[in-house]
Amino acid sequence: MVTFAQVLYDFTAEPGNNELSVREGETITITNQNVGGGWIEAKNSRGEVGLVPEDYIEAQPFTSGGNAASLDLSLFDSHIPAPPSTAQTSNGNDPWAVFDSNASGGFSNNWAAQPEGTETGETSSSAWHSGGHGHPQAYQGPGAEDDEWDEEWDDVKSSGGYAESEAGEGGAIHRGGAHGSSMKIALNKFPGFSKSGPELYLLSKQPAKGTRLPVYGGEAGPVWAYPDYQLDCVVADPKKGTKMYGLKSYIEYQVTPTTTNKPVNHRYKHFDWLYERLLDKYGSAIPIPCLPDKQVTGRFEEEFIKMRMERLQGWMSRMCRHPVVSSSEVFQLFLSYKDEKDWKMGKRKAEKDETVGVMIFSTIEPEGLPDLDLIEVEQKCEQFNRFTRAMDDGVKDLLTVGNEHWKRCTGPLPKEYQRIGKAFQNLSSVFNSSGYEGEATLTDALTAAGKTYEDIAQMVAEQPKKDLHFLMETNNEYKGLLGCFPDTIGVHKAAIEKVKEADKLVATGKITTSEKITMSKRASTMSYALQAEMIHFHTNRIYDYNRVMQQYLEQQVKFYEMIAEKLRHAHSQFTTM
Amino acid sequence: MVTFAQVLYDFTAEPGNNELSVREGETITITNQNVGGGWIEAKNSRGEVGLVPEDYIEAQPFTSGGNAASLDLSLFDSHIPAPPSTAQTSNGNDPWAVFDSNASGGFSNNWAAQPEGTETGETSSSAWHSGGHGHPQAYQGPGAEDDEWDEEWDDVKSSGGYAESEAGEGGAIHRGGAHGSSMKIALNKFPGFSKSGPELYLLSKQPAKGTRLPVYGGEAGPVWAYPDYQLDCVVADPKKGTKMYGLKSYIEYQVTPTTTNKPVNHRYKHFDWLYERLLDKYGSAIPIPCLPDKQVTGRFEEEFIKMRMERLQGWMSRMCRHPVVSSSEVFQLFLSYKDEKDWKMGKRKAEKDETVGVMIFSTIEPEGLPDLDLIEVEQKCEQFNRFTRAMDDGVKDLLTVGNEHWKRCTGPLPKEYQRIGKAFQNLSSVFNSSGYEGEATLTDALTAAGKTYEDIAQMVAEQPKKDLHFLMETNNEYKGLLGCFPDTIGVHKAAIEKVKEADKLVATGKITTSEKITMSKRASTMSYALQAEMIHFHTNRIYDYNRVMQQYLEQQVKFYEMIAEKLRHAHSQFTTM
Repeated sequence: MVTFAQVLYDFTAEPGNNELSVREGETITITNQNVGGGWIEAKNSRGEVGLVPEDYIEAQPFTSGGNAASLDLSLFDSHIPAPPSTAQTSNGNDPWAVFDSNASGGFSNNWAAQPEGTETGETSSSAWHSGGHGHPQAYQGPGAEDDEWDEEWDDVKSSGGYAESEAGEGGAIHRGGAHGSSMKIALNKFPGFSKSGPELYLLSKQPAKGTRLPVYGGEAGPVWAYPDYQLDCVVADPKKGTKMYGLKSYIEYQVTPTTTNKPVNHRYKHFDWLYERLLDKYGSAIPIPCLPDKQVTGRFEEEFIKMRMERLQGWMSRMCRHPVVSSSEVFQLFLSYKDEKDWKMGKRKAEKDETVGVMIFSTIEPEGLPDLDLIEVEQKCEQFNRFTRAMDDGVKDLLTVGNEHWKRCTGPLPKEYQRIGKAFQNLSSVFNSSGYEGEATLTDALTAAGKTYEDIAQMVAEQPKKDLHFLMETNNEYKGLLGCFPDTIGVHKAAIEKVKEADKLVATGKITTSEKITMSKRASTMSYALQAEMIHFHTNRIYDYNRVMQQYLEQQVKFYEMIAEKLRHAHSQFTTM
Repeated sequence: MVTFAQVLYDFTAEPGNNELSVREGETITITNQNVGGGWIEAKNSRGEVGLVPEDYIEAQPFTSGGNAASLDLSLFDSHIPAPPSTAQTSNGNDPWAVFDSNASGGFSNNWAAQPEGTETGETSSSAWHSGGHGHPQAYQGPGAEDDEWDEEWDDVKSSGGYAESEAGEGGAIHRGGAHGSSMKIALNKFPGFSKSGPELYLLSKQPAKGTRLPVYGGEAGPVWAYPDYQLDCVVADPKKGTKMYGLKSYIEYQVTPTTTNKPVNHRYKHFDWLYERLLDKYGSAIPIPCLPDKQVTGRFEEEFIKMRMERLQGWMSRMCRHPVVSSSEVFQLFLSYKDEKDWKMGKRKAEKDETVGVMIFSTIEPEGLPDLDLIEVEQKCEQFNRFTRAMDDGVKDLLTVGNEHWKRCTGPLPKEYQRIGKAFQNLSSVFNSSGYEGEATLTDALTAAGKTYEDIAQMVAEQPKKDLHFLMETNNEYKGLLGCFPDTIGVHKAAIEKVKEADKLVATGKITTSEKITMSKRASTMSYALQAEMIHFHTNRIYDYNRVMQQYLEQQVKFYEMIAEKLRHAHSQFTTM
């Protein structure tokens, strides 16, 4: 089906990026909606084909997916088939659905709800992807266009187009093949009454293995044991390496811990391996956010690498800030790569670790804290559940608004200031031709004013990278973190339900009375872990949002002050003497 | 034919203005495109009908005319019938067409071109209307909605809808029934070889009647005789009066000359009468801009009256600033209304004035200025023609850009800042529910930041009235003035052509040799008049544009400084201690 679009603004193609230069008012034929990254492929009247930024065109309502214009219309134009993903989205959008379903129900439906839990997982994880990917797409070029890199992306490239068809919700994209904490947990933890359910820990007889994780009573509540020295690391200096005689290329990032100050090199796949280990080991007790999206969002290698590095840095810093994660053996291994042999050994050891899944709770030791009764445990759990889901909504809302603002600031708005500037300069050159002596002052001033508005246009277009970018990144990070809670909390809810029916289990001789006591004692331990984690989350959240808002507003102030200053100077050049 | 539109932004109806409240994303049926004033009539799914701002909706391409969206699409959607007026516009748009046609040609095609001249006139006059009306429509409500006033509008109300169908070009609207200088001149001056052609003056035997108008040699060229005291007047205090036992109502404006300081009351129709007189008397030598559009653009009487008064003030001030016009008997009569009898007498006298049309040149007396030869005369004429048409383009360009900027600043942009503000406040209230002690500072700061962006939204929406408005009004005024030049210059070109063929006329015995000499002498006089007028135009232009740009930039500076200040305050409330 042919789809036409009208060009709203002039766009000049960058050579070598198979872009297409178009003029305002021109009509083009859309040849591919699903290029992604905020671009569409189009053909002009001369039959030339190339990429055009989707914000620069206005499509007819018949278009399916792709750009905002057509999505708007799709809301009321029945001709438009809903994007294939919509169904999944509407439910997938809400990783919390599972708890709605069992809010009333008890143990069994909770178990029954687990398959849903799986999908939940997918979405919550891909939601982070989407955020992570959604906003860069507003300023980055088309997707998997010009790179045939490392295998590490092969699996996702395909999903690019499909992803685009939802750019509507502030670029929130839900990918089928998304891999993430929650899904993993779901898979290995909830096949009904499997060994990997919380009961594995609640009823476990074996002694705890591995480092013990104490929880102390803090001012605001239970807290993890924090190290005296706050670990951090710098991810920098990406280098392109090749393998298979240069057939395949990959990027190595340099990771330097502030402790040793000894840089180690890691590829994305090594980060991914670390993520998998942390997820398996701590996922039930600590939300382990996904790595930055595998999806290639960058139009140029540099752009893409820069963005990924920035996000790997964010991910690593967050892991460093977590007392439990940062002090873990596997994390230390990652930061202290000595030699291939040592690395391989450490890898094998980490992969053999048995204290994973719910068994992590067996290493947690509340220090001098009274056992909590089930009511308290459940209340806490519910409270955290309410808060994290509410914050998840708030963060997504901010991301949507921010993404739209980004598009306006980099699209229509600067174009408009540019045109105002041109109009002033144009008038100035007309005045110059008047042949009347002595209006040089006016014409010079008009030209200067025009140039000023052209400068402002550029400032407007570049500003989001200076402020909105960090606001978006921080919220994307939190979107990712929050996406993990439904599963973490799910484990606790499952445990609570289990303890609730302990009596029945005793009655039916499935467990002994002492086992029942152990169960509720362990549920209390799990709750202390969750509470310590929430306190950790809150303190970090308060710090992060204070910091990012300061940063954002500081840049905004500078921005408006600079504009005022420029205009003040332009003003000074006019005279009515 | 049914036309659907999708609502882009929430809009809450003001009670009593038969508006329709709509929600973002809602689909409505457009029931009337031609309400005008930037509004459309629409029906919602519940069958409620009312007015909605056209900027708030996105129509399907099948719509004809009305809002920008549909106009865009009309550029490439063949289904859309071009607005009825387009044809007239495309040629009417260019009051200069006539000179293109005779740029090469000589006398006869120039005459032949005059019928065009007529249409030219219409357009140049309505172009001023359009400008004058075009930009308020971006912030004013629907047209002739709620007033059945004075007959003075009855004739134009009907054209409202039709007019709207061109809001595309920065709200440039071309009205069929436009009445204006140029058309009038055209009608009484160019029925081929009529008595009212320039030859009437060039060959006139009768002595000059009425006040003589000297032209002196100034520094920059020939100048009118300027009075020592610069006349001005204040148009204020509009009062609603009624007649026919209150059946018909009208507005009286108070006009107070700075000379006498004695206020006189005049209705719009009196201004219109004055305009007609000035046009008949001086139109051939001096561009007399049209009065503000008769079209009712205001949704509320107050708004409309305010806008009309502002523009009558602008028109009067410009007339006051003109040495010839301001000192004329008819203008003085208008400013010094004593009693009905005196007014009636003066009216009759003015209407009987015989020194009208080209005969005004008979009263012009170059003082101690050498006769110009035809080459010089023609060069000057050409130069003025080139400049005024170039400036006409420049001014229209600025108006188009300004109008689009106006729409953005009052429509999408503030909505966006509002949503950013809401997102911050929303997140703040979520944080409040965390149950974690000691984040009051953050939540208060976040709320404050949110409110700040809501304030900014309002500032953005109100700013155009504080700065862009005056820039637009000044350019509208100049658009009107420039629209008169094609005819004024046309008279001169006609005279030049006439003198050019003087020899032929002598040869064919149509005129004597001395008449031929008189002709070229009088052409020289006409040229001095035109030159004096151009000098007057230039000096005023330089002053006006310096002033309006100062005003505009000053307000812009204030605007951005205030935003910076607000954000600085919001910033100060966050802390990372």
